[in-house]
Amino acid sequence: MGRWVVIAPERADRPSAFLRPVPEQDGGVCPFCPGNESMTPPELLARRENGAWSLRVVPNRYPALRTEIQMSRNGLGMFDSMAGVGAHEVVIETADHRTTLAEMPLPQIEAVLRAWQDRMLDLSRDMRLKSLIAFKNHGVPAGATLFHAHSQLIALPFVPDALEAELSAGRRHFAGKERCVWCDIVAQETREKERVVLESERAIAISPWAARSPFELWILPREHRSSFETASADELRAVAEALRTLLRKIDVALEKPAFHLFLHTMPLREPLSDSYHWHLELKPVLTQQAGFEWASGCYINPTPPEEAASFLRQTEVFP
Amino acid sequence: MGRWVVIAPERADRPSAFLRPVPEQDGGVCPFCPGNESMTPPELLARRENGAWSLRVVPNRYPALRTEIQMSRNGLGMFDSMAGVGAHEVVIETADHRTTLAEMPLPQIEAVLRAWQDRMLDLSRDMRLKSLIAFKNHGVPAGATLFHAHSQLIALPFVPDALEAELSAGRRHFAGKERCVWCDIVAQETREKERVVLESERAIAISPWAARSPFELWILPREHRSSFETASADELRAVAEALRTLLRKIDVALEKPAFHLFLHTMPLREPLSDSYHWHLELKPVLTQQAGFEWASGCYINPTPPEEAASFLRQTEVFP
Repeated sequence: MGRWVVIAPERADRPSAFLRPVPEQDGGVCPFCPGNESMTPPELLARRENGAWSLRVVPNRYPALRTEIQMSRNGLGMFDSMAGVGAHEVVIETADHRTTLAEMPLPQIEAVLRAWQDRMLDLSRDMRLKSLIAFKNHGVPAGATLFHAHSQLIALPFVPDALEAELSAGRRHFAGKERCVWCDIVAQETREKERVVLESERAIAISPWAARSPFELWILPREHRSSFETASADELRAVAEALRTLLRKIDVALEKPAFHLFLHTMPLREPLSDSYHWHLELKPVLTQQAGFEWASGCYINPTPPEEAASFLRQTEVFP
Repeated sequence: MGRWVVIAPERADRPSAFLRPVPEQDGGVCPFCPGNESMTPPELLARRENGAWSLRVVPNRYPALRTEIQMSRNGLGMFDSMAGVGAHEVVIETADHRTTLAEMPLPQIEAVLRAWQDRMLDLSRDMRLKSLIAFKNHGVPAGATLFHAHSQLIALPFVPDALEAELSAGRRHFAGKERCVWCDIVAQETREKERVVLESERAIAISPWAARSPFELWILPREHRSSFETASADELRAVAEALRTLLRKIDVALEKPAFHLFLHTMPLREPLSDSYHWHLELKPVLTQQAGFEWASGCYINPTPPEEAASFLRQTEVFP
């Protein structure tokens, strides 16, 4: 059907690859806590202060894809396969087992975004890798299998469908208007205010038009920049600040929901595009998986984005 | 971003539109049980034997879309909207509160498929409706909010993405080879056997190449027919038989998992196509929602379809 799927049998060996009783807390020893560094593969990057680490990036122990294999493509009758070349890394966002991303001080959230950026720059040197998705599953309903705050990076040997769809929507808009569609969205939302949750000089957070799920949120840097790779420190700080406030708002408004957070950015080694604009998307997980969405690719959202934005604007959080 | 989303605020009024504690059993009175017919809107179709009904179709009480509104399209700056014209119906598959689809006798499963077909034929007379998805969410993790066995029909005023992607993949294959891609899949799988779970004269069940999730299964009628609307009684019986055996196999092999079941068929009023082939898809829900899939549109599947098929072939069920 023209789609690529990653078949990753090693992931079925994970303690909780399948099925129901996933522990809300790690029953035993947390592999992400200080003192247990030997439980993860050797680190790829770390931030240290006074000898203790405050953030680590390690290869995923149950990788969906890996770099140490030969790239190959095969045909099998009418079917096509390629070797699962790629990278799958884990960003351990804090040394403290109990602190969630929402609870971290601003510089720590900035450090998480900077770690994504550093790893993206490093991975972009592998010419077999075409794109990178940074994402975070928070909470069991979102698919998190460990409590300790972490995000993940997956670099792929192709450009995945969801990113390709955004890239081509951006190209279509640009072809007609010679403007970036996300810059146009930022401009229209800034004027209309209805779907804006918060704004600063460098960033804006909205519940987008045609939000696919209740309280879907986007954070966009105001300045046009296609790739997260080249975002400036000021921009990362502004986005981290917006993210921190949003996470604290949804914690209050939606009672600490599970959520997916992810980064959409240009394919690797293509930093300059007039028609794409990097951004973060945040999707609280408030409903169970629904068959209609899977069957149709069309979303039913019971919460108009204007209501979500208005509700979150009015939600007070303390700095 | 070029995608349609159904914004359906009325669905937020459902008893369990949001959030965690969804009862595994209906706490109170089941609106789908005999005697409680007044709890549903008036029926659109029913099968009766000896005065008692054995299957009913009713409008959804919390519809995502409805037929009684004016069709309209609007622009709002750069954004587009259209009125939520459509239909959302519920098929109450049995009078018995406790019987699951897997546990029903074959003629009852046939009756469910026939009810889908009858409603599809009736809805296709409304020229505003372009496509129909029949689907079933079984179990709380799959999004079911009531225990009593039921499926749903949603007719849309557009062709949704997932169906459009299949239609165009079919057209591309046909353009090169003048053969239906699903007929080719049936032929190759029948030869290779590796991904086949069961076969009969008129139908085949496989775990498809590039399955997107563990134990994803497809049931295909062998005969080329683009639309479910025109499927014969013999064909429906063969598909019902395959479905019944598959459901019983996954109940044994995967310990009564939650699942999504759905029908993919041609858009309404287009019964004849050389390049599309109606089929059922069955997706056991074995993992939590994962952010990577949402972020990328790319699936990571820890279970190779060959393993899933082999496991299910060996799973014994009693007739």
